[in-house]
Amino acid sequence: MEHVHGNTLTLRSIGIDTYRENIIYMRGDCPVCRSEGFTALTRLVVANGAKSIIATLNVVHSDLLRHSEAALSTEAMKRLGGVEGGSITISHLDPISSLSLVRAKIYGRELSDEDLRAIITDVTAGRYSNVELAAFIVGSAGDHLNERETIGLTRAMIASGQRLSWGPGPIMDKHCVGGLPGNRTTPIVVSIVAAAGLTIPKTSSRAITSPAGTADVMETMTPVDLGLDRMRRVVETEGGCMVWGGAVQLSPADDILISVEKALDIDSEGQMIASVLSKKVAAGSTHAIFDIPLGPTAKVRSRAAALALKERMTRTAAAVGLNAEVLITDGGQPVGRGIGPALEAMDVLAVLRHGAGAPQDLRERALVLAGSLLDLSGKFPPSTGAMKAREILESGQAWRKFHAICEAQGGFNEPKAAQHQHDVLAEHDGIVRSVDNRRLARIAKLAGAPRSAAAGISFHAPVGRMVRKGDLLFTVHAEGLGELEYALAYMRQENGTIQYD
Amino acid sequence: MEHVHGNTLTLRSIGIDTYRENIIYMRGDCPVCRSEGFTALTRLVVANGAKSIIATLNVVHSDLLRHSEAALSTEAMKRLGGVEGGSITISHLDPISSLSLVRAKIYGRELSDEDLRAIITDVTAGRYSNVELAAFIVGSAGDHLNERETIGLTRAMIASGQRLSWGPGPIMDKHCVGGLPGNRTTPIVVSIVAAAGLTIPKTSSRAITSPAGTADVMETMTPVDLGLDRMRRVVETEGGCMVWGGAVQLSPADDILISVEKALDIDSEGQMIASVLSKKVAAGSTHAIFDIPLGPTAKVRSRAAALALKERMTRTAAAVGLNAEVLITDGGQPVGRGIGPALEAMDVLAVLRHGAGAPQDLRERALVLAGSLLDLSGKFPPSTGAMKAREILESGQAWRKFHAICEAQGGFNEPKAAQHQHDVLAEHDGIVRSVDNRRLARIAKLAGAPRSAAAGISFHAPVGRMVRKGDLLFTVHAEGLGELEYALAYMRQENGTIQYD
Repeated sequence: MEHVHGNTLTLRSIGIDTYRENIIYMRGDCPVCRSEGFTALTRLVVANGAKSIIATLNVVHSDLLRHSEAALSTEAMKRLGGVEGGSITISHLDPISSLSLVRAKIYGRELSDEDLRAIITDVTAGRYSNVELAAFIVGSAGDHLNERETIGLTRAMIASGQRLSWGPGPIMDKHCVGGLPGNRTTPIVVSIVAAAGLTIPKTSSRAITSPAGTADVMETMTPVDLGLDRMRRVVETEGGCMVWGGAVQLSPADDILISVEKALDIDSEGQMIASVLSKKVAAGSTHAIFDIPLGPTAKVRSRAAALALKERMTRTAAAVGLNAEVLITDGGQPVGRGIGPALEAMDVLAVLRHGAGAPQDLRERALVLAGSLLDLSGKFPPSTGAMKAREILESGQAWRKFHAICEAQGGFNEPKAAQHQHDVLAEHDGIVRSVDNRRLARIAKLAGAPRSAAAGISFHAPVGRMVRKGDLLFTVHAEGLGELEYALAYMRQENGTIQYD
Repeated sequence: MEHVHGNTLTLRSIGIDTYRENIIYMRGDCPVCRSEGFTALTRLVVANGAKSIIATLNVVHSDLLRHSEAALSTEAMKRLGGVEGGSITISHLDPISSLSLVRAKIYGRELSDEDLRAIITDVTAGRYSNVELAAFIVGSAGDHLNERETIGLTRAMIASGQRLSWGPGPIMDKHCVGGLPGNRTTPIVVSIVAAAGLTIPKTSSRAITSPAGTADVMETMTPVDLGLDRMRRVVETEGGCMVWGGAVQLSPADDILISVEKALDIDSEGQMIASVLSKKVAAGSTHAIFDIPLGPTAKVRSRAAALALKERMTRTAAAVGLNAEVLITDGGQPVGRGIGPALEAMDVLAVLRHGAGAPQDLRERALVLAGSLLDLSGKFPPSTGAMKAREILESGQAWRKFHAICEAQGGFNEPKAAQHQHDVLAEHDGIVRSVDNRRLARIAKLAGAPRSAAAGISFHAPVGRMVRKGDLLFTVHAEGLGELEYALAYMRQENGTIQYD
């Protein structure tokens, strides 16, 4: 009888993926469940030798587990370094002290740098449940964080992970503040800037709620899951890289917060600025351009909001030692033609290879950003950036640099087309009045993007175009007929994705 | 090939209890998962014939499920009326429109009665995920709801479930605003008030985070899970009842919000008032006494807060047609000796039976509340309530009424003692200076209360008592040695539950 070790259980793997939240599954009739009760959201400390995590309890009332067993969600298993059949011990969770600071914020108190560091340390260590993360996000939503707090949060996020350094600068970077399908300028900008002789070690994210992140797009052409050592070698040889940021653990608190923030669809100016800037500083960047697309269905929807964001962002960047320039750009409709990893990659390649059918809007946006970065670097005569960027692109230097970076990352492949296509045609004559970015993104996701790399949308109806009945508005691409049907079912019930009359 | 029905799956039961949150388990390689993606907190509509629920997706990467199968958490299965082997269809979730009102509240907008009704309607229908519930709770936390909004929320909560009526009043009720272990006055008060000839159809809750709710305590002596019809018959015969409120679905939105609110440990005056008052009005009460224990480890910790709460509560009650009186009482330490269902029942019985060892503090508190209720009813000469209450208790009428109510509810049983006891003794001489209610409650819960009805604490060291080395401070009661050990392990690492020097 192991009465006094009622809190030691054998670990089983049952393969349930709860994404970032740690869940522990235990039988309702085990001693721990009996004492902790069956209430929602009971949190426990789970230890495996010296390692421990905090997990939320889900109670099992079936033979999924034996009395002496417990199971962990996929991520929790990894974080704890648990193995099938191993022993774990369960203990109750003492209150997480930084949560009292979250409560103070909710009740309107200003948080100090130290407070924010305590919160972010606990968030990074996985000590907050999803509802606790939601509490912090809501408490800091809207304009609840002032400028001092925004700076403090940025610093705390920078400190939460590793910080890269790349020797003498300038170290260039760019970032687009969300919300514009197909706006895949990064591969073009990085190629131009690296070809100009500057250093631009670009890390990018995968899609969270969008149909593609830059890392997803690059992955259709080259490996992006490089460790830090391989990333360094690529940058040393080519001056730039385009890798997935997740592999190098920059500002990990941010990844955790974003997962809940997106689910809530709550905008927090302070958190957004801290998120974006912390990633740049942690990546070792010294000079960065930020692109804020402005439009009725983009993330930022009014000029006043865009200008306020620009102002706050510029000052916060200065406070954490980053030379930043913020550009407000047109966010009225998708950029390029493709929405989805492979389809966007094809647009990027068309621009780089200077093909006849290259999307001009994508090309021009990339040139503006690349030109601004060249100017911001201070390495060229003032205001010559735009001209130099165009020269590098048109001469084919940018394409050669892109190809060389891909080769250094592990080889270049052409992105592949999807198995199934469905053309959406105009039902009557008209002029395109508006395009709903969010609905287009939704259709691309339902069609399988970004998991199915070739899935998504190719878009042919920019605002202002005259269409005749039967003209192609857009094409839905999917790898399976089931996914195609799923996307089309949504599309049929949602009218007005593209308005033309 | 069922390409176009990729969203129809066969339902399996896997017995995972996620408490109130609906979870759907689906294989990562099924068409729906592929299109919705693997992000956290993806929400889906799950339909079974005409019934549908909203559930959060957890992805399975194992043989727990076949490709064509999906499983639901225990509660979700019940809510959907699903059966093992049945067919369900999955579809994407359109945005829940009331969430935009929650966002507006977060950004500081005042909500109208209509806004609050829309939110509460969606909450009641289970359309909010836990993080969305957290967002509403945090958005309304502290003093973020003004008096108009508090009244609106109370009305919306009343409208969210059924509303009982009991014929001509007055219909009496009482409620204690949380946080004082062992404060089990309700059975005594109901017995006195019913014995006085008034109507008091009392519904009570089970414990959520405490070691016992009144329904848990009563259940050690009589059935409490009565449907509305049986409850009516008891009240018709005896004038009062003491049943579990969960069976009669009063203010169901409140139960949903409370589960997340407790997990966050966030106080929201507006929500608390709406919660308490909506339950009373929905129960058909016309006259109610509210007891606010005030103390350093009680729910309300300052006199100013207690007075503000009293004021807001009285005015909100008047606005929704409830005659309310609010009493601020001493919340410095546990009331009676028992903490845990059966142990508290024994205290109640000792008072009712007028036994020599009956806890005088519990007895006196019950008499104050019962006396106030008699006065509030307007059915007796002014200010005679206290005297009349004492007379009813001392004459044994209250005990006879209690016994009769239990018999009407299905029979009376004596509460049972636990199998294992551990005495905690004073380690030195001293005078008891303070008692940490929260730690005592925690120990009682770890020992198994309220699930093990006989588990808990009997407490023998009230503030001011002189203790000698070796005197009994309290006894821990548990049904299993594992649970006893679990409670003692916590107790040993937490010094200062009782301070004496």
